[in-house]
Amino acid sequence: MASEAKHQTSSKHCGSTEHGTKGTVVLAYSGGLDTSCILLWLKEQGYEVIAFLANIGQEEDFEEARKKAVKLGAKKIFIEDVRKEFVEEFIWPSVQANAIYEDRYLLGTSIARPCIARSMVEIAKKEGAQFVSHGATGKGNDQIRFELSCYALYPEVKIIAPWRLPEFYNRFLGRRELMEYAQKHGIPIPVTPKEPWSMDANLMHISFESGVLENPKNHAPPGLFKMTKDPEVSPDAADILEIEFKRGVPVKVTNLNDKTVHTSALDLFIYLNEIGGKHGVGRIDIVENRYIGMKSRGIYETPGGTILRHAHLDIETFTLDREVRKIKQQLSQKFSEQIYNGFWHSPECEFVRQCIATSQEFVEGKVQLYVFKGNVYIMGRESPKSLYNEELVSMNVQGDYEPCDASGFIKINSLRLKEYHRLQSKAVSKN
Amino acid sequence: MASEAKHQTSSKHCGSTEHGTKGTVVLAYSGGLDTSCILLWLKEQGYEVIAFLANIGQEEDFEEARKKAVKLGAKKIFIEDVRKEFVEEFIWPSVQANAIYEDRYLLGTSIARPCIARSMVEIAKKEGAQFVSHGATGKGNDQIRFELSCYALYPEVKIIAPWRLPEFYNRFLGRRELMEYAQKHGIPIPVTPKEPWSMDANLMHISFESGVLENPKNHAPPGLFKMTKDPEVSPDAADILEIEFKRGVPVKVTNLNDKTVHTSALDLFIYLNEIGGKHGVGRIDIVENRYIGMKSRGIYETPGGTILRHAHLDIETFTLDREVRKIKQQLSQKFSEQIYNGFWHSPECEFVRQCIATSQEFVEGKVQLYVFKGNVYIMGRESPKSLYNEELVSMNVQGDYEPCDASGFIKINSLRLKEYHRLQSKAVSKN
Amino acid sequence: MASEAKHQTSSKHCGSTEHGTKGTVVLAYSGGLDTSCILLWLKEQGYEVIAFLANIGQEEDFEEARKKAVKLGAKKIFIEDVRKEFVEEFIWPSVQANAIYEDRYLLGTSIARPCIARSMVEIAKKEGAQFVSHGATGKGNDQIRFELSCYALYPEVKIIAPWRLPEFYNRFLGRRELMEYAQKHGIPIPVTPKEPWSMDANLMHISFESGVLENPKNHAPPGLFKMTKDPEVSPDAADILEIEFKRGVPVKVTNLNDKTVHTSALDLFIYLNEIGGKHGVGRIDIVENRYIGMKSRGIYETPGGTILRHAHLDIETFTLDREVRKIKQQLSQKFSEQIYNGFWHSPECEFVRQCIATSQEFVEGKVQLYVFKGNVYIMGRESPKSLYNEELVSMNVQGDYEPCDASGFIKINSLRLKEYHRLQSKAVSKN
Amino acid sequence: MASEAKHQTSSKHCGSTEHGTKGTVVLAYSGGLDTSCILLWLKEQGYEVIAFLANIGQEEDFEEARKKAVKLGAKKIFIEDVRKEFVEEFIWPSVQANAIYEDRYLLGTSIARPCIARSMVEIAKKEGAQFVSHGATGKGNDQIRFELSCYALYPEVKIIAPWRLPEFYNRFLGRRELMEYAQKHGIPIPVTPKEPWSMDANLMHISFESGVLENPKNHAPPGLFKMTKDPEVSPDAADILEIEFKRGVPVKVTNLNDKTVHTSALDLFIYLNEIGGKHGVGRIDIVENRYIGMKSRGIYETPGGTILRHAHLDIETFTLDREVRKIKQQLSQKFSEQIYNGFWHSPECEFVRQCIATSQEFVEGKVQLYVFKGNVYIMGRESPKSLYNEELVSMNVQGDYEPCDASGFIKINSLRLKEYHRLQSKAVSKN
Repeated sequence: MASEAKHQTSSKHCGSTEHGTKGTVVLAYSGGLDTSCILLWLKEQGYEVIAFLANIGQEEDFEEARKKAVKLGAKKIFIEDVRKEFVEEFIWPSVQANAIYEDRYLLGTSIARPCIARSMVEIAKKEGAQFVSHGATGKGNDQIRFELSCYALYPEVKIIAPWRLPEFYNRFLGRRELMEYAQKHGIPIPVTPKEPWSMDANLMHISFESGVLENPKNHAPPGLFKMTKDPEVSPDAADILEIEFKRGVPVKVTNLNDKTVHTSALDLFIYLNEIGGKHGVGRIDIVENRYIGMKSRGIYETPGGTILRHAHLDIETFTLDREVRKIKQQLSQKFSEQIYNGFWHSPECEFVRQCIATSQEFVEGKVQLYVFKGNVYIMGRESPKSLYNEELVSMNVQGDYEPCDASGFIKINSLRLKEYHRLQSKAVSKN
Repeated sequence: MASEAKHQTSSKHCGSTEHGTKGTVVLAYSGGLDTSCILLWLKEQGYEVIAFLANIGQEEDFEEARKKAVKLGAKKIFIEDVRKEFVEEFIWPSVQANAIYEDRYLLGTSIARPCIARSMVEIAKKEGAQFVSHGATGKGNDQIRFELSCYALYPEVKIIAPWRLPEFYNRFLGRRELMEYAQKHGIPIPVTPKEPWSMDANLMHISFESGVLENPKNHAPPGLFKMTKDPEVSPDAADILEIEFKRGVPVKVTNLNDKTVHTSALDLFIYLNEIGGKHGVGRIDIVENRYIGMKSRGIYETPGGTILRHAHLDIETFTLDREVRKIKQQLSQKFSEQIYNGFWHSPECEFVRQCIATSQEFVEGKVQLYVFKGNVYIMGRESPKSLYNEELVSMNVQGDYEPCDASGFIKINSLRLKEYHRLQSKAVSKN
Repeated sequence: MASEAKHQTSSKHCGSTEHGTKGTVVLAYSGGLDTSCILLWLKEQGYEVIAFLANIGQEEDFEEARKKAVKLGAKKIFIEDVRKEFVEEFIWPSVQANAIYEDRYLLGTSIARPCIARSMVEIAKKEGAQFVSHGATGKGNDQIRFELSCYALYPEVKIIAPWRLPEFYNRFLGRRELMEYAQKHGIPIPVTPKEPWSMDANLMHISFESGVLENPKNHAPPGLFKMTKDPEVSPDAADILEIEFKRGVPVKVTNLNDKTVHTSALDLFIYLNEIGGKHGVGRIDIVENRYIGMKSRGIYETPGGTILRHAHLDIETFTLDREVRKIKQQLSQKFSEQIYNGFWHSPECEFVRQCIATSQEFVEGKVQLYVFKGNVYIMGRESPKSLYNEELVSMNVQGDYEPCDASGFIKINSLRLKEYHRLQSKAVSKN
Repeated sequence: MASEAKHQTSSKHCGSTEHGTKGTVVLAYSGGLDTSCILLWLKEQGYEVIAFLANIGQEEDFEEARKKAVKLGAKKIFIEDVRKEFVEEFIWPSVQANAIYEDRYLLGTSIARPCIARSMVEIAKKEGAQFVSHGATGKGNDQIRFELSCYALYPEVKIIAPWRLPEFYNRFLGRRELMEYAQKHGIPIPVTPKEPWSMDANLMHISFESGVLENPKNHAPPGLFKMTKDPEVSPDAADILEIEFKRGVPVKVTNLNDKTVHTSALDLFIYLNEIGGKHGVGRIDIVENRYIGMKSRGIYETPGGTILRHAHLDIETFTLDREVRKIKQQLSQKFSEQIYNGFWHSPECEFVRQCIATSQEFVEGKVQLYVFKGNVYIMGRESPKSLYNEELVSMNVQGDYEPCDASGFIKINSLRLKEYHRLQSKAVSKN
């Protein structure tokens, strides 16, 4: 017993667990080949496995996945619809923040992980499971996002990451070995050939990477995108939307063409995805810097999120004081980096979220925009809380403004510049 | 004489100068109604006036403007083609920086002012003029950008800003008074009615503001844009470009459709404007925060600059180390703010430019992109200086990478989070 | 009449107001020569003057000042004790923030101005005064801090700053003219010669500047300091204090030598001034950058504030998460700059104060320190909310920590560095 | 055999290497008990060991250490005097940056590691050693600083960190086992009992941690400090120094008491240590946040570095433009964090060092200060490159300054604040 315990301790060094005895694992199960095999493999190692599948907006036959998990021998199966909380607690704060990683990536995958992990940890605690497991690879960001969330919310948890365990990855060198393993255990294997890249989908976006995309010079293959129409074949007429915000969050979307209105969070976000998708909005092809320290190439489509980014940026600048905006912008950069790196459930991210939420108190009003051929064009905005003062800014109305004050403003601002010039002239004249 | 001098001193308080005696002014003259009247008015006040007109890429009949200035009684007229230096010394650093104000504005007007002012100050010094003058209004940013540049480069200069002088703006309350004044002095007045907004054009962009645009809810009127086609009527076929960068600056643009190649700075920038314009790229409608402390609404079209922003962002992320990029990004934010506020010619902006230039040493390579219906889509990139390591990132190749290392990385990163959880649990359990 | 009107117009440009007619001014009155003369002068211009004097902890014979104001002809006199609110609403937030300007100045004057101005504006509003006035000079920071506060809290107010009005400063060229003016009006003039520098005192600190101190090379004259003993003659035995914090604010100070205890905000701050003063703590001699754009030399003594800075820094680092601390530190820098520049009553400063207050929730515990010969030495600290984990950090206890994890952490962190080396080697080998 | 192989595989995951066969290790050897045992142990594992000992200013009998290494069976021994490069290439950039970690720690250990590692890597490359090894523990910062430097400069290197290897740390559970091991191999063991804390010394500072200091409440034991006199017994008379800077680096130190002068980098730094030490300057007791994610308590004495920090801050603020200073200050924070975390040899740190060096071009002049009873007091400063303009700042001289300009400056700055007040009043009145 003691030596067993000790053995566990030492092998724990690399994240694995030595088992053979009972123990319950909650597995982040997708119904696909990888996590099906992992489920089997975990059982083979002597664990009891609870399959957990989050409905976070991906296209999936959840009933089919449930049946398959039963067949695989899962002790219990939880399929949780987290779409509403995903929108309200993860997407909305990102919209408030104008969160963006390295100026381009809207963080669709990054914010999904802490949402899924939170839900999974709740189940693990409720079910008394000491372990959680997932099918993320050992080079990516998702393992980090997933595990940091788990450790933060359930510090005693032990994590089994098969793709980082030599005993697993040396056995399953590729897709072929997984297929064989599945077949041997009577698991239905995918009949359609896998596409030569990997894909991750949720309500916010779909990401594409790996395979043929790994060469950063290769163009995206035709037919890659799923959520968005190719702008070449998207409609020749725009949709005109009015999006209303309260506290920095969209509360109403009106299509001014057909007068349809959406007001609940989940509902309006799905609608924005639909409109954005129809017009091919939100496609990007980037190289990004992973937290793990390597560069990787990713292609993303984020239709609704892209529309909201344009609209929120607009209403925010309209209603927020300039200097508050500047400080909030820097906090948003921290926030974006925290999200990308997997630190959603961290003291610093909690802190920054609170600060950003504070900044949004007066971010309220309506933005009119049109969506057309892959683009979002702002047309106008109005707000009861705006700091915009038409009379003050007007060239034809003096307002509460003395033009002469500007002279003093400029002269005082030039003092430093003149002193610097004086110093430099001195430097030059001495040479 | 003494009382005259004293009088000058006291009125100087608000930026004006009392004159009646000789003195030479270099006037930033555009050939338009305002600066034509200012030229006359300055002469009326007893100054000798040198008209200065910079060709910074705006559409203008420079010969016509010259003739008009002669007729107005300018002592000398300087028409300087500053387009090449505008591209190489002002646009290029902005491209290197990915300079952007409040997440949207590409600073086309802001970078033009210090370029024009520098050229004007050189003439003022050469001609021994103690004064410079301009037609910018008292509520805008341009007066600041213009004057801070002048003070920085020529600290002893005195600036006459008629639109801030009560004796001027109380006399010329509107366009009508200017027209009458012009007519009275036999100056040709514009025959076409002025559009109900104001416009400022240069090689980088055209900006539109004031008039009907002052109501932030009003949509941009049809026919507003000049440099860019409406995406609704732009071509149905994309142009595919390859842009090559060295040290963060474009050195070659190849149109992969027709194989045309442009390599000189000015030439390739004009070409990017042409392609961007043809496809309706770079239109934005924003509310922005002026340095003077008020919000204003502006509409901009920046075709070539927008293409370059996309391309540079891409090649930069591909070649710059993640952490260098992050620090550089913060410097760029400072830079953008400095530019917007008029501090191009300042010690801090000089410092930041040097730092940013340092960061661009290895920003080198080629980006392929296509331009279509108002959008720029990155397709792929390659670089001899990339930090991208295809083998390292590949999911199928282990490379010089132990998956197990990630476990340690994650666990060490989770230490803080666990401690925080411990503290919070304690806090909760005590309550 | 016309010339009068014109005079009004032009002088309005420089911050003055309609005179000759009735109007009520609240004057920030100190009882000294300058503001006594200003009081008289304002009456001479036709204003009714309300004298306002804040007790913000400076040494002052307030009764004497009141009598003098009566004699000067003030319509009303308000002497307000704002010490408690100064400590609780201005000093405490600065302590929480570790506010410091340019790495050295603890902002003692800067935080006093918005406190005084707020109190003054309340009186102006209550008394229906349309004007406020002050004796600050035209080159300093205080005019800005004072006036921005007034404009922010009472936007319609008009401000009369005599030292910026030519009609005032050309008449009172120096101290001699003020003395003569006072004498002529039967006002008692100071009998002791003024010290050859100026001084500003409050509960937080005393500042010294101007006069002989203007030459930055000159050493501070002996006898300058008032609140603090010269360390050369300060006691040879230390005082040992224990300071207890809750939410980042001191709530109890115990002198471990004599067991005296102070708990109320004002009381304990006065006590810390006493102990700090006795041991010569908090003297600095600096050159700083004024908001107005010039460098100036200032000497400060801040005994209690300096002790609190040491103590708060210590308990904060002990209880705050590393990354929260880092973000909070950057907010503090903004905060310090806002305070120094006069923007206490601004949207951005309000925002930052809220964020910083949020960060202080768990900043709780006790710090032991000793104060000796101008220095504050931290001896130890304890906290019920600490994130310090003695078992985890101990070299002799493994704790919940696998040393091997550090290997993975380091290796993953080195990935970027290796890639960069690879690139550089390539660059070198090509040359 | 098989189990051996398996052992190798699994242990490789945690940073160890192939043993049993030949291979050369360069060991960072100190002559102390730990690294002596490691040397033996490495040989026992089948390595050839080169002992490397850097003279970085610590008190050490280098000849004795060499003899001991011979006795231990080192293949070669390198004792390198890196003091000059330590001062010029590591301390000086830190002085230029005013580098400080978490507002208090002057980074004395942090900057020593990359200096030692660089020297060691040079030897490893020259000697064809594939391995380096060190005696740093698995919970500290030094392992990271050391190893990141090695990986950055010699990416192919393999690192053996015995204190992270179970086969080592499970065998040598404490000091007793090390002593026994040493004795068994005939190695002289320390006769004086070890102090109940650990210590790390170099030219910049001595740090103390661990043992009795691990309890953050415990006061530092008497007799702890080595470089600095206790201020209670330090001299009753100050030393007055004049420090001259060029490009932000001290180039001359004059003691104004005895007129001694020091000009070479190493020489003057040693002298400042002497003076600072004599007067008890630079002692701190802090809790800091390790990169590894835990808080730890450290006590430091940094006499010369503390004097230089005061002096450099002073001359820098005197000569640097305000806005340049602010940007540079933020870069310095990055720099400090990079240093602390071990990233001296990284692209981002290289970049930041270049930027900071750029900022120091005009940081030139003389600072007078006195050192007394643990404190450094600035007395005055002068510079040929100062931006200080005595005439401009003087209250008695108008200079090139119109007081009235300040009115405009303030009013323009108040525009935003007034608008915000308007909005808030509206918000309130609606409630």
